[in-house]
Amino acid sequence: MNKISIVDKYVELKRKSGSHSPSINSIKERIPELKINVDACFLSNPYATELFLDYFKREMIDTDEIYSVLEFYPSQNRIIASYVEKQLGIEPGFVFISNGAIEVIQAVIHRYAKGKIMVILPTFSSYYEYATKEMEVVFYYLDKKNDFKLDITDYISKVNQIRPNTIVLINPNNPDGGYISQYDLKRLINELSWVENIIIDESFIHFAYEDNDLTMKSIVKGIINKDNVVIVKSMSKDFGIAGLRCGYAVMSKNRVDDLLANGFLWNSNGIAEYFFQLYSREDFLEKYEYARKKYINESKLFFKKLKKIKNIKVYSSLANFVLIELLNGLNADEVSTQLLCDYGIYVRNCNDKIGLDGEFIRVAARTDHENELILRALDGVTSFTEKFH
Amino acid sequence: MNKISIVDKYVELKRKSGSHSPSINSIKERIPELKINVDACFLSNPYATELFLDYFKREMIDTDEIYSVLEFYPSQNRIIASYVEKQLGIEPGFVFISNGAIEVIQAVIHRYAKGKIMVILPTFSSYYEYATKEMEVVFYYLDKKNDFKLDITDYISKVNQIRPNTIVLINPNNPDGGYISQYDLKRLINELSWVENIIIDESFIHFAYEDNDLTMKSIVKGIINKDNVVIVKSMSKDFGIAGLRCGYAVMSKNRVDDLLANGFLWNSNGIAEYFFQLYSREDFLEKYEYARKKYINESKLFFKKLKKIKNIKVYSSLANFVLIELLNGLNADEVSTQLLCDYGIYVRNCNDKIGLDGEFIRVAARTDHENELILRALDGVTSFTEKFH
Repeated sequence: MNKISIVDKYVELKRKSGSHSPSINSIKERIPELKINVDACFLSNPYATELFLDYFKREMIDTDEIYSVLEFYPSQNRIIASYVEKQLGIEPGFVFISNGAIEVIQAVIHRYAKGKIMVILPTFSSYYEYATKEMEVVFYYLDKKNDFKLDITDYISKVNQIRPNTIVLINPNNPDGGYISQYDLKRLINELSWVENIIIDESFIHFAYEDNDLTMKSIVKGIINKDNVVIVKSMSKDFGIAGLRCGYAVMSKNRVDDLLANGFLWNSNGIAEYFFQLYSREDFLEKYEYARKKYINESKLFFKKLKKIKNIKVYSSLANFVLIELLNGLNADEVSTQLLCDYGIYVRNCNDKIGLDGEFIRVAARTDHENELILRALDGVTSFTEKFH
Repeated sequence: MNKISIVDKYVELKRKSGSHSPSINSIKERIPELKINVDACFLSNPYATELFLDYFKREMIDTDEIYSVLEFYPSQNRIIASYVEKQLGIEPGFVFISNGAIEVIQAVIHRYAKGKIMVILPTFSSYYEYATKEMEVVFYYLDKKNDFKLDITDYISKVNQIRPNTIVLINPNNPDGGYISQYDLKRLINELSWVENIIIDESFIHFAYEDNDLTMKSIVKGIINKDNVVIVKSMSKDFGIAGLRCGYAVMSKNRVDDLLANGFLWNSNGIAEYFFQLYSREDFLEKYEYARKKYINESKLFFKKLKKIKNIKVYSSLANFVLIELLNGLNADEVSTQLLCDYGIYVRNCNDKIGLDGEFIRVAARTDHENELILRALDGVTSFTEKFH
């Protein structure tokens, strides 16, 4: 194995992917000689994936139902939305089904955001990259000295001062996993009721908790009468089904009507429709709840062990990943490339994330076994590299 | 079987579906007691579906590859576009991948169409329904007296007179199957070079032909340097894979860059990506070409036999369906409901299509065996109903 050529190929592939990481499939296709043992870049619950694939095998493949799902047209947006409305326990008309969360992020920003959009940094880059030329992006920086925790009072006062048309919050935030409590979020929504668009991205909310029972949190029920709030939800993370492109948003009936009046009628594929049906079924949700809690508990343990590794700082997270700062001369390019090429561990190199001052990687929790592989590899790389600095 | 209640349920379901037909899956779910033998509403080549599903079974299901396709992120737009560019034999940068043709129809109309949009009637309704409030829709009516054939000279002169910003042509047209020759289309593009957006929808072009060899036609290669022309292509019809949501558009590099600059990065699902890869493979394309020609030949024969049925007029079509006018007092509601409830034959009742003066249904060609069932049923219904008028 020619390690240098593998490293070169990977660096080139990463360059081509812009501000997003190359997908595991792209890496496998372009660098087949690279053996990937753990994809700790991909932010998903592997137990939920397993659960979905088990249902899919029994109900779609073993029955041959998959063939008609691929051949015929899926249902229209509102029909699929009704499954999600049932699961959320809200009345019909508030849910917009989306081809991955990214479609509704684009739709809401392009249709409703005007003038200033205020985005927290660091963040998921599409929130500012999808802004149009007519918009002005204003950044609100999370303070590293405060461990990237959002100071809600300071944030509200900055919004009142800057007067943006649109604000975006990811809860928990990506890439640091910082969580805004439901209490603080309600306060923010109430105090900022004049903001025309408050976008709250709950794509990682299934991993957050406020009590020992790990009860699932969400602001959805609190915003039904708030016409200026849009809740964005990806299903790729909590259910580990990124290939299906399932997402949705909860927003005012008027906005759902407006978006569907001249578009987005048939934006789901047949397997996405099947997933949303499952998502409204008691039997599936009961099993999912078990998988969710198991994963959170294992992740907590994993993060605890990570904190013991030398030469790194692990930031506190209520998501399914942690942001790790590399200390004592370690750098992100070197560490992430070594993890990949020497150990087959793929992590997110954060050196392209704006708003992060220092050397950072982001590591997702995986299965217990995979977490052990990550711990061993990271311990190896950070100790080994240390000797040369 | 209570026929009246089935008819009522169907009429209600159709009402709810707006200007589009209820999908076969919706009908099956809502009226399970109804037995559908032939779906002649769905415009697809069943032999191509069979071919795709055969590949899919061997390469995705039997290998368990399907599971990682569903779990992980598909590639970005440009990577998938490169497969289509290879198939079309055009240089990179001109293809935009779309979540079904409908996504790019929406994107192009919402982003580039301004002021007047001129749409031919009858047509696929999304072309005017997706117009925004700021736009003005102007209709150009095909003349029934001229068998809905487009008079290219008259059309060009009307466009020159009305001065729309955007014009839309479906070739062959839906629902009548009328075909504009490549010669006429080139003339139109040249004479109307001042029109800012010429949208040509080639979703049914694989079924059209100009010679006895049934050579595949397309205007794609003729428009590469025409910045104002957008070719829209659905794959749901020619490949019979509506559940995958595969579509694309060929347009200027500037427009592809513009659309991708702030959106549409990850709009394909994993199975759609697999299809587009297949679409660039020699072995698949060779078998597809056989399935395409077999289907066209059988469809020609079917249309010929349809023309012999009494009390109907079958309009000439170069698509995979025919528009049928019901004569001598037959009406579309009655005939389509009878075909469905008495024979299990689902056809498109065109009574909601604007621009059609009279009683019309649209019937798709299916397999040889299914075509025979359609012929027998239609003969039965039109002879039977005749007695009561």
